[in-house]
Amino acid sequence: MTIVPFLKMHGLGNDFVVLDARKQKLDLTVKQRQRLADRHMGVGFDQMVTLENPVSAGADVFMRLHNADGSEARACGNATRCIAARIMGEKGHGNVVIETVSGLLAAEAIGNGHIAVDMGPAHLDWQDIPVAAACDTLHMPVALGPVSDPVGVNVGSSHAVFFVDDVNAIDLPLIGPQLENHSFFPNRANIEFAQIIGPDRIRMRVWERGAGITLACGSGACGTLVAAARRGLTSRKGEVIVDGGTLTIEWLENGHVRMTGPWTLSYEGQIDLDALVNGHG
Amino acid sequence: MTIVPFLKMHGLGNDFVVLDARKQKLDLTVKQRQRLADRHMGVGFDQMVTLENPVSAGADVFMRLHNADGSEARACGNATRCIAARIMGEKGHGNVVIETVSGLLAAEAIGNGHIAVDMGPAHLDWQDIPVAAACDTLHMPVALGPVSDPVGVNVGSSHAVFFVDDVNAIDLPLIGPQLENHSFFPNRANIEFAQIIGPDRIRMRVWERGAGITLACGSGACGTLVAAARRGLTSRKGEVIVDGGTLTIEWLENGHVRMTGPWTLSYEGQIDLDALVNGHG
Repeated sequence: MTIVPFLKMHGLGNDFVVLDARKQKLDLTVKQRQRLADRHMGVGFDQMVTLENPVSAGADVFMRLHNADGSEARACGNATRCIAARIMGEKGHGNVVIETVSGLLAAEAIGNGHIAVDMGPAHLDWQDIPVAAACDTLHMPVALGPVSDPVGVNVGSSHAVFFVDDVNAIDLPLIGPQLENHSFFPNRANIEFAQIIGPDRIRMRVWERGAGITLACGSGACGTLVAAARRGLTSRKGEVIVDGGTLTIEWLENGHVRMTGPWTLSYEGQIDLDALVNGHG
Repeated sequence: MTIVPFLKMHGLGNDFVVLDARKQKLDLTVKQRQRLADRHMGVGFDQMVTLENPVSAGADVFMRLHNADGSEARACGNATRCIAARIMGEKGHGNVVIETVSGLLAAEAIGNGHIAVDMGPAHLDWQDIPVAAACDTLHMPVALGPVSDPVGVNVGSSHAVFFVDDVNAIDLPLIGPQLENHSFFPNRANIEFAQIIGPDRIRMRVWERGAGITLACGSGACGTLVAAARRGLTSRKGEVIVDGGTLTIEWLENGHVRMTGPWTLSYEGQIDLDALVNGHG
């Protein structure tokens, strides 16, 4: 028996299994991770979060992210808010720094159960997305069926944002995976479809790289607001309405993106990683 | 805060949240139950099992079942195996009796982590299914698109079993709900599609009343074997292969149905039912 405690958390329905490897190392096998991701036979998650000891001075924790398909994710805004809230509870104060493979993220409790995270700078150069050929990322030469002309943004992870008249008319399961794996995105990309509601409101749906349709993608909401502001479709601060709720995104004058939203601890659990794969008896 | 412990269990991927109301009464609101059923924002389950003190002499526990849509279920073979294994662990022996709204179910540990359950008698009269008009349940006058002529069986819950050449060719999400709610089934019905593989092997897929597509339905596997034996398509004992694995079903000479299969404890958890609905902060 290898009993491991875990947390189940979510930010706007984007859900996480959180494992703590700070005191005790955790080396899950591929099979264990797959079973953990299974919503019927395991726990189920959009992303698995492993808390590790930070490497950089000034960081309170290192947050490692894996998608349900086993691939490693570089950024997840919703997970950042959840983990920030958890670490704030441990530390007893409302300012923490989360280290990720993409860099340090400063988070602040702003009351009402909401957490604001500095998601770092929005990178706009084509090499930063990255894409397969030099271009102005304000108009990228990608088209598929009814959608075309996306904006490219990297906010810790890479995003291609397509502006559309009606996000509900988009057949996400059909075109999402094709765009995620489009040859123009050598490292694949998160795909957002955005509908402008007003100068400070955007409705967005997402196909997440490695996770598929999710109820919310925090870094995708950041990328979407930046893309809309670059196109002059919105101001630099606004609400991004995803399937699971609403995030407030601000593209600061220093080029960083600030994301504000809620977090939820769904429950705490203890799982036997051996029985998970091998069963009982 | 209302912290409630729970178990997450599954039988062949048919998964359950198990709550224990034997020592402390549990009255969940509709909103709490819906959130608990949500796989992203709660825990998620095909059926919720509430353990209560038994009413009948000789029973070890009362097992109450709710579907994810909030409706009460009358029988669930996979849950019966899981709960039997749990109660066997409590009692320290391998024979227990589970009480349900459909009657008493005797369960026996047979080794290798497998549990055999006497699912009670298979009822075959049209009033027992029930259906809307008198008929021989060996050939019921129901047809929809490519399927027709189902067998009716009640094994604690009512089942309509359609024999088909290729279960994978059936568009379950399309015809499942239409058949579940067909006017011939005044109390709705579980809908099974069965493909005969051999004289003691059946491949089965299910649309469960109140739960939709699930990986396995124990009582549906029982109903399917009985239906096949009645039609002379198989013998009275055989394997029923569902999406989540294999169950062994025997239609005993006394008219009872015996189901044998595995069970799994996925994990144990503790959930705050207040925060689940109202959030934090």
